[in-house]
Amino acid sequence: MKKHNFSAGPCILPQEVLKKASDAILNFNNDNLSLIEISHRSKPFVAVMDKAISLVKELLNLPEGYSAMFLQGGASMQFLMTSYNLMKVDGKAAYLDTGAWSSKALKEAKLFGEVDVVASSKDKGYNYIPKNYTIPSDTDYLHLTSNNTIYGTQLKDFPKTEGLLVCDMSSDIFSRQIDFTQFDLIYAGAQKNMGPAGATLVIVKDEILGKTGRKIPSMLDYQTHIDKESMFNTPPVFAVFTSMLTLQWLKDLGGIAAIEKINEEKAALLYAEIDNNPAFVGFAAKEDRSSMNVTFNLTDQNNQEKFDKLWNEAGINGLKGHRSVGGYRASIYNALPLESVEVLVNVMKQIK
Amino acid sequence: MKKHNFSAGPCILPQEVLKKASDAILNFNNDNLSLIEISHRSKPFVAVMDKAISLVKELLNLPEGYSAMFLQGGASMQFLMTSYNLMKVDGKAAYLDTGAWSSKALKEAKLFGEVDVVASSKDKGYNYIPKNYTIPSDTDYLHLTSNNTIYGTQLKDFPKTEGLLVCDMSSDIFSRQIDFTQFDLIYAGAQKNMGPAGATLVIVKDEILGKTGRKIPSMLDYQTHIDKESMFNTPPVFAVFTSMLTLQWLKDLGGIAAIEKINEEKAALLYAEIDNNPAFVGFAAKEDRSSMNVTFNLTDQNNQEKFDKLWNEAGINGLKGHRSVGGYRASIYNALPLESVEVLVNVMKQIK
Repeated sequence: MKKHNFSAGPCILPQEVLKKASDAILNFNNDNLSLIEISHRSKPFVAVMDKAISLVKELLNLPEGYSAMFLQGGASMQFLMTSYNLMKVDGKAAYLDTGAWSSKALKEAKLFGEVDVVASSKDKGYNYIPKNYTIPSDTDYLHLTSNNTIYGTQLKDFPKTEGLLVCDMSSDIFSRQIDFTQFDLIYAGAQKNMGPAGATLVIVKDEILGKTGRKIPSMLDYQTHIDKESMFNTPPVFAVFTSMLTLQWLKDLGGIAAIEKINEEKAALLYAEIDNNPAFVGFAAKEDRSSMNVTFNLTDQNNQEKFDKLWNEAGINGLKGHRSVGGYRASIYNALPLESVEVLVNVMKQIK
Repeated sequence: MKKHNFSAGPCILPQEVLKKASDAILNFNNDNLSLIEISHRSKPFVAVMDKAISLVKELLNLPEGYSAMFLQGGASMQFLMTSYNLMKVDGKAAYLDTGAWSSKALKEAKLFGEVDVVASSKDKGYNYIPKNYTIPSDTDYLHLTSNNTIYGTQLKDFPKTEGLLVCDMSSDIFSRQIDFTQFDLIYAGAQKNMGPAGATLVIVKDEILGKTGRKIPSMLDYQTHIDKESMFNTPPVFAVFTSMLTLQWLKDLGGIAAIEKINEEKAALLYAEIDNNPAFVGFAAKEDRSSMNVTFNLTDQNNQEKFDKLWNEAGINGLKGHRSVGGYRASIYNALPLESVEVLVNVMKQIK
């Protein structure tokens, strides 16, 4: 029996994507060769990369003037690449600190220039999104983390800034309708709503590059990868292919508008149980609750053994909360079916 | 019918590895979950990473004091990471220029300090390995490329230097017996003898790190990845898993000593045909011929149509030479069976 996979990432992918990815490892494109043993410059793979990039632009409704790249190194590599590419020599950047990932991002930025933390929710263990903060007008960019997996918080609105707007969307890209053109740079590790670990999507407004005065190593320079259409060196073939399959699955489903509706339904069902069942308490501030990662705990820890036994028996996987928050975390990414949330809620109803 | 895959990279992998990798995409570890949808910090995947690292050390016969890492970004990312980690502020590095990859490596090093090209074979289109050059005594390290895929040349001996010795072994690691302890740092993209594109193996002598006086971004600092056992951030799960399977296949076969014998047999067979058949001519200088990439051309281009038709009909794939050299390139990496070389040689015998 396939499990109900609430893993925080790497996480569930559509079953049909897994099937196609598995098949391609044995025989890709009916060429009697594996996807992973052919040249990345062969026509069949170049077509995969082109399609992946074009699906990204189509699904996010990006106009001309934006480039999309598939890189390596995860969001962690983007923490330094954003600064390297966007922070001027003797420049300054603003960061909104909404959790561990924001903190790691701003730590790397400090190697490149001055960092202004415009607000932080660290005072309350990052269980809310700071509001009403001031963004200095002289910063090269403002960096945001749209969704905070560990704490289950999510930015519902995005601030305006005079500088560039940069957003780490690793854990909620392709999950909800946003005007993506309000950002100058977006990055996202593939391993939530897009594909397996090993690829990182970067979207950038072309006109913002090349203005820092820095000499950037080739592999860290976005312009390198744009010019070579993500083929400056051998790309992570399998991760790009599987991401392409997931993006195609999303398009066939009706795109972001369609998945957003399902995601809202899943989140509403789960948060309702947390709010209505006195045996549970949510972690994140209500107005900042994530539609991707639902964090909660038992009000009475004496119920832990029973609850853990029940969800394990129900075939649920990956429900343990992050060690820094404790309790439980149900990650309900795009590929998680509503049925899995129903199974979880039914288990929760047995705890009173 | 499975093809005879002479692709230069990504390249052929053992059929049993492809089968196991394909299976794991659907159900890994009999947990009813895909390899690519579980946490990289779960016990089953941590065991994969540990095994991959331990197989590397065992197969290369590395003593205590060496660390092995699986990173992202390919050898191209190592071009800058080696300089970042090993070249002192106001330091100097020596490079042996044996081809396009050496050139790219030294180009990146120039961003970090002075680069001394100790010798180059560019004068003859990189068809040989320079010898009898002088290595300055004041360089932080000497950088070598052990095998040059494009030209089909390979270093048979490695020079001694007073500084550190760094080697890009992307295209011949695990293919021949070498005293790997003569190197202070070795790196290799996975996509030749190890696994799919998307993982990069780095081996470093621990004591050489942390001595440059540079502040290194976390993701570019080898020490970060050593301390976190290649789990500082989400690793390229599929590429590491498949590399582990290939390393296990190599161990079961008898390790590097066993594969070296087979590789020598394959290379001898193919080079003999090139030398004995007047219809063909080799590209690389005989004493520098690679046992991984065999570059050759037709002596009479009028035979091209006939030859191309014959090898295509024989189910051969990936024989076209690199655009900068032309002609043909038969890449005969570890996983390519002797039988495939026999098929190619039989086709060549039909050209006279």
